[in-house]
Amino acid sequence: MNPEIYSYIEEKLFEAGALDVYKTPIIMKKGRPAIKLSILVNSEHEEDIEKIIFEETTSIGIRKFGVKKVMLKRNFFKLNTKYGAVTIKNSYFNGKMVSCKPEFEDCRRIAHENNIAIKEVYREVSKLMEEYNDK
Amino acid sequence: MNPEIYSYIEEKLFEAGALDVYKTPIIMKKGRPAIKLSILVNSEHEEDIEKIIFEETTSIGIRKFGVKKVMLKRNFFKLNTKYGAVTIKNSYFNGKMVSCKPEFEDCRRIAHENNIAIKEVYREVSKLMEEYNDK
Amino acid sequence: MNPEIYSYIEEKLFEAGALDVYKTPIIMKKGRPAIKLSILVNSEHEEDIEKIIFEETTSIGIRKFGVKKVMLKRNFFKLNTKYGAVTIKNSYFNGKMVSCKPEFEDCRRIAHENNIAIKEVYREVSKLMEEYNDK
Amino acid sequence: MNPEIYSYIEEKLFEAGALDVYKTPIIMKKGRPAIKLSILVNSEHEEDIEKIIFEETTSIGIRKFGVKKVMLKRNFFKLNTKYGAVTIKNSYFNGKMVSCKPEFEDCRRIAHENNIAIKEVYREVSKLMEEYNDK
Amino acid sequence: MNPEIYSYIEEKLFEAGALDVYKTPIIMKKGRPAIKLSILVNSEHEEDIEKIIFEETTSIGIRKFGVKKVMLKRNFFKLNTKYGAVTIKNSYFNGKMVSCKPEFEDCRRIAHENNIAIKEVYREVSKLMEEYNDK
Amino acid sequence: MNPEIYSYIEEKLFEAGALDVYKTPIIMKKGRPAIKLSILVNSEHEEDIEKIIFEETTSIGIRKFGVKKVMLKRNFFKLNTKYGAVTIKNSYFNGKMVSCKPEFEDCRRIAHENNIAIKEVYREVSKLMEEYNDK
Repeated sequence: MNPEIYSYIEEKLFEAGALDVYKTPIIMKKGRPAIKLSILVNSEHEEDIEKIIFEETTSIGIRKFGVKKVMLKRNFFKLNTKYGAVTIKNSYFNGKMVSCKPEFEDCRRIAHENNIAIKEVYREVSKLMEEYNDK
Repeated sequence: MNPEIYSYIEEKLFEAGALDVYKTPIIMKKGRPAIKLSILVNSEHEEDIEKIIFEETTSIGIRKFGVKKVMLKRNFFKLNTKYGAVTIKNSYFNGKMVSCKPEFEDCRRIAHENNIAIKEVYREVSKLMEEYNDK
Repeated sequence: MNPEIYSYIEEKLFEAGALDVYKTPIIMKKGRPAIKLSILVNSEHEEDIEKIIFEETTSIGIRKFGVKKVMLKRNFFKLNTKYGAVTIKNSYFNGKMVSCKPEFEDCRRIAHENNIAIKEVYREVSKLMEEYNDK
Repeated sequence: MNPEIYSYIEEKLFEAGALDVYKTPIIMKKGRPAIKLSILVNSEHEEDIEKIIFEETTSIGIRKFGVKKVMLKRNFFKLNTKYGAVTIKNSYFNGKMVSCKPEFEDCRRIAHENNIAIKEVYREVSKLMEEYNDK
Repeated sequence: MNPEIYSYIEEKLFEAGALDVYKTPIIMKKGRPAIKLSILVNSEHEEDIEKIIFEETTSIGIRKFGVKKVMLKRNFFKLNTKYGAVTIKNSYFNGKMVSCKPEFEDCRRIAHENNIAIKEVYREVSKLMEEYNDK
Repeated sequence: MNPEIYSYIEEKLFEAGALDVYKTPIIMKKGRPAIKLSILVNSEHEEDIEKIIFEETTSIGIRKFGVKKVMLKRNFFKLNTKYGAVTIKNSYFNGKMVSCKPEFEDCRRIAHENNIAIKEVYREVSKLMEEYNDK
């Protein structure tokens, strides 16, 4: 399959309800290099996903198996930085915050608008988050 | 495991009823690079496949889980080209043809016999298929 | 490094003159999984590329070696389809056309606008190209 | 995630009852390179493993599915070599020995203590095992 | 590129003088999964190799750089086993044998003809080689 | 090659002067999965490295090419945390600090000794570094 098409397929899959999509490099029979497409989907969207795979890709077969998905609880808040507001995603396990992470798109936009390295943005955010979490 | 052996194992697995065999590069514990062998098989051939894995490979364990396989309906027909007949594999989803593909072995043989690039063979076949599908 | 950052870095590298950028999954010392970033660049842009790598990524070292790049000659033309014009990229080796390929972005846009599978767009283009090349 | 942390996580997972841990290089949405962490665990240790994943890694989600594990029967014995004793791991399928393999750590120690190539140690062990198995 | 074509290309490359051919899974720009084809070739066959790449594959560019190849000295001899003769490939570094390895194709044929596991063939050969090397 | 041996080889290579060692999953001829071992070394240690490769691994050939290595300037200092001292590695590009990173082994030890998640250690260190860098 033309590798340019993957991002296109991916977008269609997410639009159709896919919860996650990832690709794994594999070696098929007779040593043929290939890409395995893995899709996580609720059963209600299963049929739509199948349709996209068969109509849009060169795949002629699908394997399905049930998985149980465990996700951290998350909430979002706005952190004010000297560059403007950045959305922070906090994740909680058993009520305890185990991760706080700025939204990448916010950091990217700020790095671009201010013509600074994205590492600088992450550092600034990290500093403010430490202060914030200390309170 | 000696990498030369993979193709040998693969052949034995297909002979014993495997429906698909593929390999994935993984990193095992302590950073050891390895190859995960994945085999799709009907339950009736499960035991034969297990025997081959344990007797022919260095693997000492297998993990099994059930999958549901969905395959496109397919049919085959012969397309006459100026180089001779080429088998075409048509695949159908919900009654609509979503893929038509020449058999690789036919194209390979033709490229070899006529001393032309295999891309040339695919192009010739593609052209005829368009005309055929237009009718 | 945060995997979200790769596309950001990539864009910056291309803007700074990189001719190609690709990533390879590798296993570093002590079994640490990592991504090797490979960049093809003319010597005139070498310094700018270096600056981006060191300022934007977590990399602390670069290895450089000279390569000679051989590229096919290419030209572009517009093909009129029932869905509108599609840019075709022809590549030539020793004066002979060895590849003709529609621009992905055109096909993607057409598939989206017409709500059809991108495979359908490629098929339509392929058909017209065969007719065109026959003349 | 900092690639240095993987070995640390791995150790914690094994201490908490993981039966196997491996990593697969994958490509996530938007072309982001990533590492999929796969863990095999008995249901009794499932909760402890989950706790480690969420508290120690940057992962915010887990997918679970049941697998049936088939393992070869194994026993261990000491083989006396001119370099000292080496533990040999024999594996049996249907009562037949299908693999006999020296413990890597023994071979590593011997190679180090005797300042010889580890291939030499394996060769010596292999020779003695053949003689032993012939009896 | 159609993954079926790789083995075909590979054969053509070796026929045209390639000393080695291997493939590496990579991630191209915009997160496109791809396969990097690496070819080792003497300068005298460089042009033929280039012709195959551009005429037979979808590649539109090649990068070249000089490498110095260091190979072990090797010789071959026939080892008589109870299953018939097996070619053994010995490799020498600084005059010392560092590797002795049966030819895979011989072992494969023997396993097939005698309907035994290929591991059995390797074990038999290994045993005889130890005895032989002891003399 | 037995995957257990890689870490052993790696250690020997670093002891013999290798500046970097990494592994890449590749697909060799006839579809054989393999691992490419890449070693960065100064010419003065080239011979020792070659000896290890040929005596300790199953490799029978090496390809060499010159690379120019560019490394960031680095210095180290001790940061006092409530858990004890942690070594910080600062990296500089054109006189500007572009990275400050705690030594993994210190963080690992602290996480172990205090029975806390290593993420907690990194967070504490990150907080103190921000305060320190602000002065």
